[in-house]
Amino acid sequence: MTGSPLNVQLLLTGNEIMSGDTVDSNSAMIAQRLGELAIGVYRKVTVGDDVPLLKEELAAMTATADLVIVNGGLGPTIDDLTAEILAAVAGVPLEEHPEAVAHLQRWCEKRNLHLNAANRKQAMLPAGAAIVDNPIGSAVGFEMTVGTCRVICTPGVPGELRSMLDGIVADLSARLQRPMERNILRLQTFGLGESTAQQMITDNMPDWPQEVELGFRAGAPQMEIKLTVNNAAAAAAQRRCREQLEQLFAGHIIGEGNITLAQRVLQLLRERGATLTTAESCTGGLIASLLTAVPGSSEGFHAGFVTYSNAIKQSVLGVREDTLAQHGAVSEEVVREMALGALDRASADYAIAVSGIAGPDGGSPEKPVGTVWLAWGDRDHIRTRGLCWPVERTLFQTMIAAAGLDMIRRILLGIEEEPRYFGQRRMR
Amino acid sequence: MTGSPLNVQLLLTGNEIMSGDTVDSNSAMIAQRLGELAIGVYRKVTVGDDVPLLKEELAAMTATADLVIVNGGLGPTIDDLTAEILAAVAGVPLEEHPEAVAHLQRWCEKRNLHLNAANRKQAMLPAGAAIVDNPIGSAVGFEMTVGTCRVICTPGVPGELRSMLDGIVADLSARLQRPMERNILRLQTFGLGESTAQQMITDNMPDWPQEVELGFRAGAPQMEIKLTVNNAAAAAAQRRCREQLEQLFAGHIIGEGNITLAQRVLQLLRERGATLTTAESCTGGLIASLLTAVPGSSEGFHAGFVTYSNAIKQSVLGVREDTLAQHGAVSEEVVREMALGALDRASADYAIAVSGIAGPDGGSPEKPVGTVWLAWGDRDHIRTRGLCWPVERTLFQTMIAAAGLDMIRRILLGIEEEPRYFGQRRMR
Repeated sequence: MTGSPLNVQLLLTGNEIMSGDTVDSNSAMIAQRLGELAIGVYRKVTVGDDVPLLKEELAAMTATADLVIVNGGLGPTIDDLTAEILAAVAGVPLEEHPEAVAHLQRWCEKRNLHLNAANRKQAMLPAGAAIVDNPIGSAVGFEMTVGTCRVICTPGVPGELRSMLDGIVADLSARLQRPMERNILRLQTFGLGESTAQQMITDNMPDWPQEVELGFRAGAPQMEIKLTVNNAAAAAAQRRCREQLEQLFAGHIIGEGNITLAQRVLQLLRERGATLTTAESCTGGLIASLLTAVPGSSEGFHAGFVTYSNAIKQSVLGVREDTLAQHGAVSEEVVREMALGALDRASADYAIAVSGIAGPDGGSPEKPVGTVWLAWGDRDHIRTRGLCWPVERTLFQTMIAAAGLDMIRRILLGIEEEPRYFGQRRMR
Repeated sequence: MTGSPLNVQLLLTGNEIMSGDTVDSNSAMIAQRLGELAIGVYRKVTVGDDVPLLKEELAAMTATADLVIVNGGLGPTIDDLTAEILAAVAGVPLEEHPEAVAHLQRWCEKRNLHLNAANRKQAMLPAGAAIVDNPIGSAVGFEMTVGTCRVICTPGVPGELRSMLDGIVADLSARLQRPMERNILRLQTFGLGESTAQQMITDNMPDWPQEVELGFRAGAPQMEIKLTVNNAAAAAAQRRCREQLEQLFAGHIIGEGNITLAQRVLQLLRERGATLTTAESCTGGLIASLLTAVPGSSEGFHAGFVTYSNAIKQSVLGVREDTLAQHGAVSEEVVREMALGALDRASADYAIAVSGIAGPDGGSPEKPVGTVWLAWGDRDHIRTRGLCWPVERTLFQTMIAAAGLDMIRRILLGIEEEPRYFGQRRMR
């Protein structure tokens, strides 16, 4: 098990993951931990608690892989089959493992439990298997070599798996004499689609270096750009790519790591000792909620207003009856007055105001569903913009709340250039 | 594709699921939808964006399965390989599919976008493939038969997959002439834990009928109780179980299907022609946001206030300085005044007010993180309650917002009995 790349495969078992009642997050956890050693997972196979099928899959894996991690099927019930399967594939009998019995006895004593037959089943392991310590649960893990392939069997309970992986990863790192060289750089962006970003990179960066792996993760509202390198020698290339992307996407990049728009805005407000307030109609409190989800948000955000009806826009924010009558609730004039009213009532430095038609009802030929006006700025300079973003209600609210935060981020940073979505989401 | 059981296999692709950056929930969604037709998934294989490996896996699957569903790899970027792989395995060329181009054009027009080359790649499909409509996204699905195996290729974006599965499941049901005999009844609850619910059922319903499968899905904030029967003859037993559960859990049941607390509250407000307002401190707009996420919420919800700081609690809601000085912001007296202030300013019939310590900072020995006061009711009768719910910030906000909505639901329904969590989350 020296030399590289290792062929690593995962075999995941359990009827509950086959039926979809449980979403398998264990295999992602295993992959992430192996990723720390720059070990990729080549292939994973998931099957139910089915003896012939499990035997077939495990036998096929041990014939091609260097390392197989089996997850699930270690427990005390009759559908826990992993030990039996591994014994069959390795051609050895099951026998009671003294260390596993001792582990079970300690586990039961600590909990004032009687060691029953069902529990004792968990100590029946393939002959010749070595124990992998389970610091939490009753079922030990175990491992053995089949042909040239190392097989490690791990528990399906996520907390137990997590603590067992610490030991497994440390052991692999030592065996492979491999320091953790992989480096993943994540850039968070807003206002770029995956296909636009890909096209821009293809057009502007024809000499993309092979050693920097480019990935996208499109979410709503943010899209992540990921630059992965697998060894320290590629760090300079990764840095150059980052610099070029920062030039190419400029104001669309929010920051590094997992940062959200709300976190970035609060960070910028803190740096400037400034506060923000919100006046929300169609986003209905979502902007406030995104801000206050961030620990410490009370420093930069003291007050938000959800003003859904016209009467409330007047009584709470001081929007004039005239303005509403003349221009309608979804208009440049109304969002401007909402922003000014919120600034005044909250004694804040900056405001975002939003009024739009989230749908599915409420649209008209002049103002179809998806029409929205945003106002943002400070007392001296309120800016406004009308956009048309005709998507499903929840996605509309998500994107417009993000656009509002993005506007504040941009003025706090002094970015004058318009975001690409101003052009793409133009009002008709 | 008649006769049964069908051998169904899933092929899932994407570097982001291999690396563990994304947890694959799509395969669970597919399995659940197939479960409605009592079709099980035999095996699933997950691999990265690797052409030879994808070809090998798909070829092996088409040799043994009746139906293969491929998920992922339909997008516009160079790592989207599914069409290429299927063409290779089927031994046909890729060609531009006119319906797929038309779909892309409509998709772009609707969004005011220009159809670029990267997007156009999504119309290059295996010759002879049929389109599977994607009601949401730019990438169509497609299907074709390889040997005796039907292969359906679906998008990796969960929302797109979800809407595409409606059509796929209806089509399978028609082809298999298999009526959907399986009936799943879902009851949404709030304030019950999975183990508590299980124990209550074990203790109170010892004669649970074997033909009714009982399942729980614990989420935050709601828990779903699922009663599944596999044939029409068991419908009466399912109905009886439901009635008994309704007696047992009483006020903790919100409703049937996927209903949320916010939806239920808005429904009850509509039935009564009444309105609700919110005064939020520690939940920071989340209650307002949950309400306004529901289409048509403007009928029952006109105004919400996010009053994070003391000064704003005074200026916006009219909480008295004295009250704040004497009792602190997180107190029974302050939430009562917040509720009354909000009722007055919003001219609403009902109010929820919340003030608490979401953490991670801001706790004290007297008022530790997790301490929260709620007030709810109408002008004639404001009720209050202090709770201690010491969990991580986001979960705290989620649970407290839900508890606030639950209080309004309970008074609108005239439920006097206290919820179980009042006892469990008692203030020290």
